[in-house]
Amino acid sequence: AILEAIEHHLAAPAGPLTGRRVLVTSGPTHEPIDPVRYIANRSSGKQGHAIADALARLGAEVTLVTGPVALPDPPGVRVVAVESARDMLEACRAALPVDAAVFAAAVADWRVAASADQKLKKQPGAETMTLDLAQNPDILATISGLTEGRPALVVGFAAETERVVEHARDKRARKGCDWIVANDVSAAAGTFGGDANTVHLIAGSEDVDSWPPLSKAEVAERLAHRIAATLGSAAS
Amino acid sequence: AILEAIEHHLAAPAGPLTGRRVLVTSGPTHEPIDPVRYIANRSSGKQGHAIADALARLGAEVTLVTGPVALPDPPGVRVVAVESARDMLEACRAALPVDAAVFAAAVADWRVAASADQKLKKQPGAETMTLDLAQNPDILATISGLTEGRPALVVGFAAETERVVEHARDKRARKGCDWIVANDVSAAAGTFGGDANTVHLIAGSEDVDSWPPLSKAEVAERLAHRIAATLGSAAS
Repeated sequence: AILEAIEHHLAAPAGPLTGRRVLVTSGPTHEPIDPVRYIANRSSGKQGHAIADALARLGAEVTLVTGPVALPDPPGVRVVAVESARDMLEACRAALPVDAAVFAAAVADWRVAASADQKLKKQPGAETMTLDLAQNPDILATISGLTEGRPALVVGFAAETERVVEHARDKRARKGCDWIVANDVSAAAGTFGGDANTVHLIAGSEDVDSWPPLSKAEVAERLAHRIAATLGSAAS
Repeated sequence: AILEAIEHHLAAPAGPLTGRRVLVTSGPTHEPIDPVRYIANRSSGKQGHAIADALARLGAEVTLVTGPVALPDPPGVRVVAVESARDMLEACRAALPVDAAVFAAAVADWRVAASADQKLKKQPGAETMTLDLAQNPDILATISGLTEGRPALVVGFAAETERVVEHARDKRARKGCDWIVANDVSAAAGTFGGDANTVHLIAGSEDVDSWPPLSKAEVAERLAHRIAATLGSAAS
């Protein structure tokens, strides 16, 4: 145990978040339709992974809960791989308690109500089909609404295609989180799969900080520093 | 033009398929629900890409029409990247005429009937939703049924979770293709995303060749050699 403590101390860089525990979610979720089909979101996980990396560099002990992505694990971060929204919520609960939680994953709002164990067959003659969807648990609202063990700072993401700040402000109030990082994901902004991000940080109903277009690494660094300034260090 | 002809001659290895044109499809298709969501299939594209590679090594001029995959382009193969089933069919038609066509892609049977231009919003209070699906064009049946310009050899794939050979034999008759390569994709067989494949080649209603578990590269090589034996060389 002493050796482990020393190793951990050596591995984690000292910084303004030394001694702080942070949860980050990243990537899409995959909601199974049957053994070979699923519903997915266009999320590369680049932004969430960059945030986990930036927080770890500032000394935080980071748990990254991630859906299926084609990205390497950020160094010095504990990574938990999941598929569906329900799995992601369970992994988030298991990571508590934390000082801050950043929900950057693109979680599917809907799952297939009754996913089939066997592959669905095309019915000859049937030209249409309906897929019944059920609402997934809302991870951001669930963690924001915890009466016991709520993180001191809960940060949500909003991917919007229109009226970005207005929709994000509504979302902040509806979910009960502290901050919303709002992404413009209209085709014109080129956020999904790309390396740049146009972001507004909504930290209060009248507290909106619009950042210039930045790389996802730069967005991550700014956000990590702002989290550090808000939480302060637990190390002293 | 003379230089191009020489370059092509130098680039393509001489082999039993020299002078033959082959079309291969690979990967999943992505069918958009809205700008951020889509329906996908669990297909890595490993098998289709390996087949394109094996055919090119035997001297064929290969066009590979592929859905979104995280794989490098096989060397010496013309690669056409597509997203949806309808795009894939269009790219296949554009690749004709060919001597043989191998349809290894996991094409979505269904697309969303009316995909939304704006991101769908979760409606407060709505616990369920239905997604109306319309049947996609059947690429294998369409190309198999061409009266003009049908490839001499059309090979389909069948991914089955149960009664593999029986379902594949039915599919061969229904689609009008010449051969079916039937994959056992039950969870137990571990085909999707993995490197090994358990395959039955159905080349006639009574002509079933069950191969031992092989790597996807070995399946590709066996199939390419069998295609070469059937077509013969056009070079002589």
